[in-house]
Amino acid sequence: MPIPFAKRFDGITGSAIREILRFISKPGMISFAGGNPSPAALREDVVLEYTQKALLRDGKNVLQYGATEGYAPFLDSLERYLNEHLTIQASRKEILPVAGSSQAMDLLLKALIDPGDTILVENPTFLGNIQCMRLYQANIVPIESDAHGVITADLEEAVRKHHPKMVYVIPTFQNPTGRTLALDRRKCLAEMASEYQFVLAEDDPYRDLRYAGQTLPAIKTFDTTGHTAYLGSFSKIISPGIRVGYLTANEAIIRKCTIGKQSADVHSPNLTQAIVDLYLRENALPEHIKTICGAYRLQLDAMLQELSGFPEGTRYTVPEGGLFIFVTLPNDLNAQKLLEICIERNVAFVPGTPFYPDGGHHDTMRLNFSNSTIDTIHTGMRILKQAIIDLGGE
Amino acid sequence: MPIPFAKRFDGITGSAIREILRFISKPGMISFAGGNPSPAALREDVVLEYTQKALLRDGKNVLQYGATEGYAPFLDSLERYLNEHLTIQASRKEILPVAGSSQAMDLLLKALIDPGDTILVENPTFLGNIQCMRLYQANIVPIESDAHGVITADLEEAVRKHHPKMVYVIPTFQNPTGRTLALDRRKCLAEMASEYQFVLAEDDPYRDLRYAGQTLPAIKTFDTTGHTAYLGSFSKIISPGIRVGYLTANEAIIRKCTIGKQSADVHSPNLTQAIVDLYLRENALPEHIKTICGAYRLQLDAMLQELSGFPEGTRYTVPEGGLFIFVTLPNDLNAQKLLEICIERNVAFVPGTPFYPDGGHHDTMRLNFSNSTIDTIHTGMRILKQAIIDLGGE
Repeated sequence: MPIPFAKRFDGITGSAIREILRFISKPGMISFAGGNPSPAALREDVVLEYTQKALLRDGKNVLQYGATEGYAPFLDSLERYLNEHLTIQASRKEILPVAGSSQAMDLLLKALIDPGDTILVENPTFLGNIQCMRLYQANIVPIESDAHGVITADLEEAVRKHHPKMVYVIPTFQNPTGRTLALDRRKCLAEMASEYQFVLAEDDPYRDLRYAGQTLPAIKTFDTTGHTAYLGSFSKIISPGIRVGYLTANEAIIRKCTIGKQSADVHSPNLTQAIVDLYLRENALPEHIKTICGAYRLQLDAMLQELSGFPEGTRYTVPEGGLFIFVTLPNDLNAQKLLEICIERNVAFVPGTPFYPDGGHHDTMRLNFSNSTIDTIHTGMRILKQAIIDLGGE
Repeated sequence: MPIPFAKRFDGITGSAIREILRFISKPGMISFAGGNPSPAALREDVVLEYTQKALLRDGKNVLQYGATEGYAPFLDSLERYLNEHLTIQASRKEILPVAGSSQAMDLLLKALIDPGDTILVENPTFLGNIQCMRLYQANIVPIESDAHGVITADLEEAVRKHHPKMVYVIPTFQNPTGRTLALDRRKCLAEMASEYQFVLAEDDPYRDLRYAGQTLPAIKTFDTTGHTAYLGSFSKIISPGIRVGYLTANEAIIRKCTIGKQSADVHSPNLTQAIVDLYLRENALPEHIKTICGAYRLQLDAMLQELSGFPEGTRYTVPEGGLFIFVTLPNDLNAQKLLEICIERNVAFVPGTPFYPDGGHHDTMRLNFSNSTIDTIHTGMRILKQAIIDLGGE
């Protein structure tokens, strides 16, 4: 059937992670590949309790068409949560519940990006959003980062040169590097967005998963002109399978994203919004986050401990939280080749290359520690180490 | 904040229905405006039972990240449902669960439409999808319909002239007219799609809501070349608030839509897919559909009975099913002005104009009968009749 597809799909092959995930469902596979929460962190008992409460209390409204603007009780609790938990002052017209922060990015791009518009991103950055930007035919320009996040002097130079419509950052426990943007750089980014009139998209799904160090304020808290858009998610702290996130931004942006969402999916399911509403309303998150952070801290430590014994020349980030460690292999080893060996030995990870908009960096890889037990981490990392040695790492 | 929005939003003001719905939440309002199921048709007890079953059986997977391709048990039951209930033979690679059939349309447009590409639509047609097409900057060409649906001779002439990439129809109990496309025209459309190489988007959310006459086969059943894409929905027969629909089309189209969905929302919530899966698996739909059709039939009859006493010159469709009657007012009365009077008197409906891609038709309106009781229909229709008289209808 020779139907020509739209030009936005030229060169698009699908998410590398999603493709790898399709192949790792085989039994016994140790997966360091996805960004999946631990099964223990997913509380079907609590979700069932809240579903029951929501349906008994407001079942007819929950099952009926809802407003694109969001399920009203959730908007109330979300406004309070932003104010109290994140110290982001946002009115209801500045908040939009969405289907995970991925949809927040999609709607922001829909609102702002014409083909050819420039977006500056960290190098490397979340590959799902690189694909999303490509589908909007954006011109993606990567900016180098160091241990303290994106290098603001480089960023400012690129802003002057490229006049971007958007700058995209993951400031806390970045995906894939695990790095956190320093406080002074956060302030600097908010100011730059106002001065140079671009939208700073602050994607912050990991911020509550902190195992060491001090919590830093969101960039959005330094925004005085409405140029920072904050993308939040409950995927990592409640459940990714229910797909609930939110966008908070200035009213004009939220209005455009709301119209965009009318056409995308009319509204997010009321039921999943109602479940998260009850998590917030019953103040169940602080205790739950404490529990999962306690477990994830040990998993991170186990993975770092194994990495410390890896062949000489192996480099890796040491994150204070989040889900990922980013590894650079010794001797220019190719991570794709390593993956092929590891898959045969029942260990999976994601090579670093697709996280770089311009490709390359074939000696890098992203490791996830949240979705494996301590034992599995030790086992999987030893297999990985041996595979590196077999490939010529030592 | 002078940030320029993307050009796709030029001239887009938001869904007329969604805007009206925002204002009709005031107590005592009789709404003939939305396409809402009856509250009695929404079964929170069944949804709770199935949620419990899904979470007890497969809770960790339900709450974890899922495949963009869909929740595996739902794919199984959906494949069987399509085969048995619709006699559509589709493999799993030809099916994609989505967030309501609105997302199916959004993903199809994303896969196929470049700015300026032509889409032929019925005149009038569903305004939500007109807006969606406009956001993809499509050239929308309306084709006239009669009592048997879109006029195929007119359609073929337009196909030859405009070389459309897509033709969009709602064949059964059309929105807003309530009309059903005749059998010979269904065959003709499937053949035309193959001959002229366009994608026929068959949007069929109302097909199970039949109160009279014989069920007609989907256009998709006449498709031998993979040019028809079928958009299905569980919004009208289970719940619109859970946002579950599906797209079935040839494998190449589904693949592009799957990649498009990776970027849009990663995947639909597993929980809502699991709920619909159990509706199908436990064969709960036939009995439920019988119950709601019994009630809706009486509501339709009540509205038609009232319409028969409306001022001379009032014309209206007499649908065999669905949710809507389309009315043309006497004496060229303006439906927008009528709406303003009616809102003051606590009755709401949707004027017909936004359903016409080229506007005009100010004397038309769409009435919904599914979301009001028999008593409310009688009361509301009498208020509507008096308002027409007061505006100069008689």
